[in-house]
Amino acid sequence: MPEFPASVRIREVGPRDGFQNEPEVIPTADKIALIEALAATGLRRIEVTSFVRPDVIPQLADAESVLEAIVLPETVSASVLIPNERGLERALRYREKFQEINGFLSASESHNAKNVGRSIEGSLAGLSRTFARARSEGLRCEGVISTSFGCPYEGRVPSELVLAIARRLVDAGAEEVGFGDTTGMANPLQVRNFFLIARDSLPEVELTAHFHNTRGQGLANVLAALEVGVDSFESSFGELGGCPVPAGATGNIATEDLVSMLHEMGIATGIDLAALVDTSRGVQAVLGRRLGSHVLSAGPVDWQH
Amino acid sequence: MPEFPASVRIREVGPRDGFQNEPEVIPTADKIALIEALAATGLRRIEVTSFVRPDVIPQLADAESVLEAIVLPETVSASVLIPNERGLERALRYREKFQEINGFLSASESHNAKNVGRSIEGSLAGLSRTFARARSEGLRCEGVISTSFGCPYEGRVPSELVLAIARRLVDAGAEEVGFGDTTGMANPLQVRNFFLIARDSLPEVELTAHFHNTRGQGLANVLAALEVGVDSFESSFGELGGCPVPAGATGNIATEDLVSMLHEMGIATGIDLAALVDTSRGVQAVLGRRLGSHVLSAGPVDWQH
Repeated sequence: MPEFPASVRIREVGPRDGFQNEPEVIPTADKIALIEALAATGLRRIEVTSFVRPDVIPQLADAESVLEAIVLPETVSASVLIPNERGLERALRYREKFQEINGFLSASESHNAKNVGRSIEGSLAGLSRTFARARSEGLRCEGVISTSFGCPYEGRVPSELVLAIARRLVDAGAEEVGFGDTTGMANPLQVRNFFLIARDSLPEVELTAHFHNTRGQGLANVLAALEVGVDSFESSFGELGGCPVPAGATGNIATEDLVSMLHEMGIATGIDLAALVDTSRGVQAVLGRRLGSHVLSAGPVDWQH
Repeated sequence: MPEFPASVRIREVGPRDGFQNEPEVIPTADKIALIEALAATGLRRIEVTSFVRPDVIPQLADAESVLEAIVLPETVSASVLIPNERGLERALRYREKFQEINGFLSASESHNAKNVGRSIEGSLAGLSRTFARARSEGLRCEGVISTSFGCPYEGRVPSELVLAIARRLVDAGAEEVGFGDTTGMANPLQVRNFFLIARDSLPEVELTAHFHNTRGQGLANVLAALEVGVDSFESSFGELGGCPVPAGATGNIATEDLVSMLHEMGIATGIDLAALVDTSRGVQAVLGRRLGSHVLSAGPVDWQH
């Protein structure tokens, strides 16, 4: 039987991917308090905001204010999502507040066109310039590839194509490549086969899995990835965000569900699950609605009884 | 890497485990229509009702009426949950309407006491008599062991204890033993280790996994079980039932989420997923509320676009 990694790294993406998908704009002070609470749970990677155009995503129009105000422990590596060079310049005014940037594109032309209005080649050219500038500022770069496991417009996306894009991102300076299952089309066998190839073709960089729970398979896909050595994941507290379409569908896997499974399996994360559940309860209070995270509802497994 | 089975058997438990957990009694005619619709999806095993005491579980007080009325194809094996010999005698009036019975107990004394008011030994003695009588009528017997992966009152339940109970059930005539993760405490590593031992210690009977999605790990546990050769599962359409406590927590894994994952992995079930989703939509209409099944909300994966 395959072995599991002894520990994994988790990047919490809720403050960006989650807050951005809320219909109401969350007050800046609440965002700051929630990010700082997340940092206090032991999370070592947090995507704190995005420098997209404020008129396009008003939910994150306060990116500068969030960066300016947050105070995070030195153990936390903060990342910001950067759509283009203009966004990077905006973020660089608060250079000392973050350590990583995340640049993204899709593996399928039609999704990339709908999402960022560019061809994949156009996106790669832009990311190349953005990563070069970010690295000149000492920032670590993650390239994220959406629709890596399937595209809602094009269907299957060949692994070779995804990995060719990943190679281009690495050549452009990415030290980490994230593979997004944007609309929850991945299955565990596909995940296993994909990462077996990916690990061989990109041995020098960190490979990160970003799964969605759209069809309930999010943690099964995590398990499949763990079995082929993936030890870096992205998830969202409270199960926020991650393109929850159609209505009622779920997006990102919930960080507390992921952490619960990992801890129960004896895999270390450095995260205090009880504190994380409290923080998710906090965002539930801010949003005024029940969230989809299972562990938030059921509580962590209690073996003490 | 471990291989997956080419096909699996799924027992749909929603008409018993789901309908029993609804606060409102579902009209008998709706139950019958839903069971017959389930049978038309290609499901070959359906737990159709339970012969518990009507004053204890009024939701299933119409067990006789349901059995009398349902018309199922010969390809479907109908099972009924039987709590004791008295329940079996009630069911036997409609002997021609079902092929299997399901008798149950818990692996932990305190859960068994709370659930059925007996000691484990007392339950085993009763099941022994019930199975003997059922077999004399040509019925196939499944023994289900609740709290096989953890007990909310006692915590850890040793695998050796669970398997010793399973052996007693087999000795009493069970041709199939189901292992229930009653409150969703199982994790994939535990599942893997458990079924590796179980397969060795009970080679002559069918071993069935009954997982709950209480902490979002239901399908990850299915994946772990598949990897060690388990090819029989129980689940509930629409994610009905399965002790959803506390409020907001989920119980049984949803049959359509399970089927979606299996089909995407190339594992056959014989079930028409689109028809199953329609049937779950039907129970949603009967109950007048949105159900937790992910595929019911998001739809099956569509690779045609």
